[in-house]
Amino acid sequence: MSGTGPGAGPAAVPSPSYSTTVRVEAAASGHLLGEVALALGSRGAQVVGIDLVEATTTGARVDVTFNAVDERHVEHVTAGLVADGYTVRSVSDRTFLSHLGGAIEVVPRTGIRTRDELSRVYTPGVARVATRVAADPQAAWNLTIKGNTVAVVTDGTAVLGLGDVGPLAALPVMEGKAALFKSFGGVNAVPLCLDVSGVDEIVAAVRALAPGFGGINLEDIGAPACFEVEARLQDALDIPVFHDDQHGTAVVVLAALLNACRITGRDLVDLRTVVVGVGAAGTAIATMLLDAGVRHLVAVDRTGPLHAGDDLLPHHRAIAERAGGPKYPSLAEAVVGADAVIGVSRRGAWDPAVLGRMASDPIVFALANPEPEVALHELPSGAILATGRSDLPNQVNNALCFPGIFRGALDARAPRITAEMEQAAALAIADAVSDAERQIGVVVPSMFHAQVHHAVAAAVRAAVRPASVPGHGGEPTPGGARALREAHRA
Amino acid sequence: MSGTGPGAGPAAVPSPSYSTTVRVEAAASGHLLGEVALALGSRGAQVVGIDLVEATTTGARVDVTFNAVDERHVEHVTAGLVADGYTVRSVSDRTFLSHLGGAIEVVPRTGIRTRDELSRVYTPGVARVATRVAADPQAAWNLTIKGNTVAVVTDGTAVLGLGDVGPLAALPVMEGKAALFKSFGGVNAVPLCLDVSGVDEIVAAVRALAPGFGGINLEDIGAPACFEVEARLQDALDIPVFHDDQHGTAVVVLAALLNACRITGRDLVDLRTVVVGVGAAGTAIATMLLDAGVRHLVAVDRTGPLHAGDDLLPHHRAIAERAGGPKYPSLAEAVVGADAVIGVSRRGAWDPAVLGRMASDPIVFALANPEPEVALHELPSGAILATGRSDLPNQVNNALCFPGIFRGALDARAPRITAEMEQAAALAIADAVSDAERQIGVVVPSMFHAQVHHAVAAAVRAAVRPASVPGHGGEPTPGGARALREAHRA
Repeated sequence: MSGTGPGAGPAAVPSPSYSTTVRVEAAASGHLLGEVALALGSRGAQVVGIDLVEATTTGARVDVTFNAVDERHVEHVTAGLVADGYTVRSVSDRTFLSHLGGAIEVVPRTGIRTRDELSRVYTPGVARVATRVAADPQAAWNLTIKGNTVAVVTDGTAVLGLGDVGPLAALPVMEGKAALFKSFGGVNAVPLCLDVSGVDEIVAAVRALAPGFGGINLEDIGAPACFEVEARLQDALDIPVFHDDQHGTAVVVLAALLNACRITGRDLVDLRTVVVGVGAAGTAIATMLLDAGVRHLVAVDRTGPLHAGDDLLPHHRAIAERAGGPKYPSLAEAVVGADAVIGVSRRGAWDPAVLGRMASDPIVFALANPEPEVALHELPSGAILATGRSDLPNQVNNALCFPGIFRGALDARAPRITAEMEQAAALAIADAVSDAERQIGVVVPSMFHAQVHHAVAAAVRAAVRPASVPGHGGEPTPGGARALREAHRA
Repeated sequence: MSGTGPGAGPAAVPSPSYSTTVRVEAAASGHLLGEVALALGSRGAQVVGIDLVEATTTGARVDVTFNAVDERHVEHVTAGLVADGYTVRSVSDRTFLSHLGGAIEVVPRTGIRTRDELSRVYTPGVARVATRVAADPQAAWNLTIKGNTVAVVTDGTAVLGLGDVGPLAALPVMEGKAALFKSFGGVNAVPLCLDVSGVDEIVAAVRALAPGFGGINLEDIGAPACFEVEARLQDALDIPVFHDDQHGTAVVVLAALLNACRITGRDLVDLRTVVVGVGAAGTAIATMLLDAGVRHLVAVDRTGPLHAGDDLLPHHRAIAERAGGPKYPSLAEAVVGADAVIGVSRRGAWDPAVLGRMASDPIVFALANPEPEVALHELPSGAILATGRSDLPNQVNNALCFPGIFRGALDARAPRITAEMEQAAALAIADAVSDAERQIGVVVPSMFHAQVHHAVAAAVRAAVRPASVPGHGGEPTPGGARALREAHRA
């Protein structure tokens, strides 16, 4: 659910995704910088910086950085500069520049400048370390990168909102994710983009490459393959296997929902909830809410509300059976009197007008990317809105979850990420918004919040139990639900 | 062939592999530092540093760093300090300390401190980069880490001199190798230690994980599996697949041999050569020497000299057929009048006394690890000796080759590493030893030589041809041999 796909959403405003630097030459003028800025601004560019590169008595060279709406807008702006008589020397797309050579690198943690240093880091000294690990495999958690390294694994079948673009095109996304893992969680993350076909091949490849990693972050793998891949890998491996598109999203949704309940004076156990869209993210959200104690939940697929009495896909059946409840004929009926509607579908899949039938002070999470299911002007009055977009309040962004949840799991050497650990992460994210900050527009913290990732890691570490309970899709975990309820009421 | 295994070789001298720091407390004394150093030196420790941590009017605390022979020696030394009346507060093994938390890490190449930066490195901006790569896969060489990243892949079946210790215990070795890749070649290297069984599983796993990498460095995979693994992967992938234990060793051996010929006034094409040991390294060495123009070569397995008329393993047959020549009854016969004997076997596998039957000014490369096949005192007089050991002159170390050869191959986006590229690398390594430096004890440069890795990379780049020729084990490449011969004669 993190981020938006290419192209403009409903509000086509200049964005840092289309940040561009043009080098412009012009005749000398006392007002050159201001004139260039005006020329850009008049064509809808959002100027964010002007740097004088070189000034002579006859002319000047300046670098102007601006945000545009899309690539055509960049062309429009630069063509306008030429029409105004400026010479455009170069046009640099800062997004592409920031990916030149890749977003991450692998570096030694100690210098190798002398034979002494070499003989410890590599041969002959390293043979002693290898011998130690061979004798005591647990030593690898201290003496190798395993204890602080996860694999970010994709098959490229469901990349952002782009779909099945294949493993190579997924690589820049995995690199960006790896950069966030380190920046926010201090975790080494290695992008592994697999050229595989089908569940068996993904599972075989990840099992093969697992020994050197302390965790596996599955990413951008399409549903329903992702369910079986995760379940089989978690059974096979003694390290956490976590499909972030499912559980990371669910954790942040639960965090946002907890704060929305606090604001509106609701209790999670009494919350009447509708989840629209039952793919990877929707399935995980529904499961997590049920695990956390939600008793009134209707999951709605494109065929309509799911009911255990119907002929359902396995992952739909699991949710429908746990949710129970009556059979609703349509989304419009299911929404009547609902406290919260959580959309993980797509814009246009259903009519936002049905939200008018919700309870007062409704909670609407419209998480479709790049375009939310509901526009601002279509919201019922007083609604709390969260989306996947960075240019609207309350961005539900997995980056709030995955760095801290793996940091905590690795620190505790947890063999899996349990429902309790996920609930602890959600509560920590929710609590990172202080009472003073909490309001309709602030149900989740910024991912640049100074403490949120540390708080998530600490909560996850504390939630690791010696005998780990089954995680995703298992039975409700009353302890976690009780803790959540108590924290929510407190 | 790089490095030595654990334990002492023939010369049990203190080594930086067993570098230890002890924190010692003692009563105040004007000669405290000297006394501690003497106490250590008297027990065979090689003191390399003493640091005063804290001094008071009644006593002092010092950190003493010393090299020992092995772990028992460390215990002997520290027990001696206690016997002398010192209080030993801590004993830190610097080799293990340098591997704490792993030898490498994965870091972002750009800061992620603001939403602007985030929106370029990750979502939503990264979607544009992914879209570009999906439309033009070649763009991945610029816009992702692929263009500067290799996988260092092992199954852990033949780790250093330790044998089949498994993938996890191989991890510290691969990390050390990755550290060298970056330090010497500027190449990102990702250790991937595979939990697989047999050739089919290795090949499947590497094919699956290959998309994100610009090259595959196979490492510490046992013979004969390594031959088939490399050949099948090179056929399947459009990036270089290079088994360093084979070809890296062969490149450095050829470099050393070229300089040994220069010193002794020999010509490679006339060199009478015996290769003892025909496993992974021996096979590659024999193949490379034949590729480079050597016409007189006898390969000797544990069963004796190979001859095409015998019943041979496939990789032995390939060499015997190319080498041709008469059938020798024994190693002792094959060595009579030989100019060069290259051992990649093990100490004790054959009698060093046979070397007395070589030509005058003989060239002896005794590359077994940790203990060379031949000790210094067993050499014929005037012999040029090279070994795998760092504590003897002329260390044949793959680290002279692999950083530069992959740097050059990645820069040229070469789809494979050809025999010509390997020969170019060997020549560059040989030429890094200047005419003034070249002597019996200096046939290869230090791996800390300021320019050797750049020189190797440049030579490899220049040797990449638009239509790459088959590499290892193919037909002789007269161009390369001619270039080598000319360079050698010049």
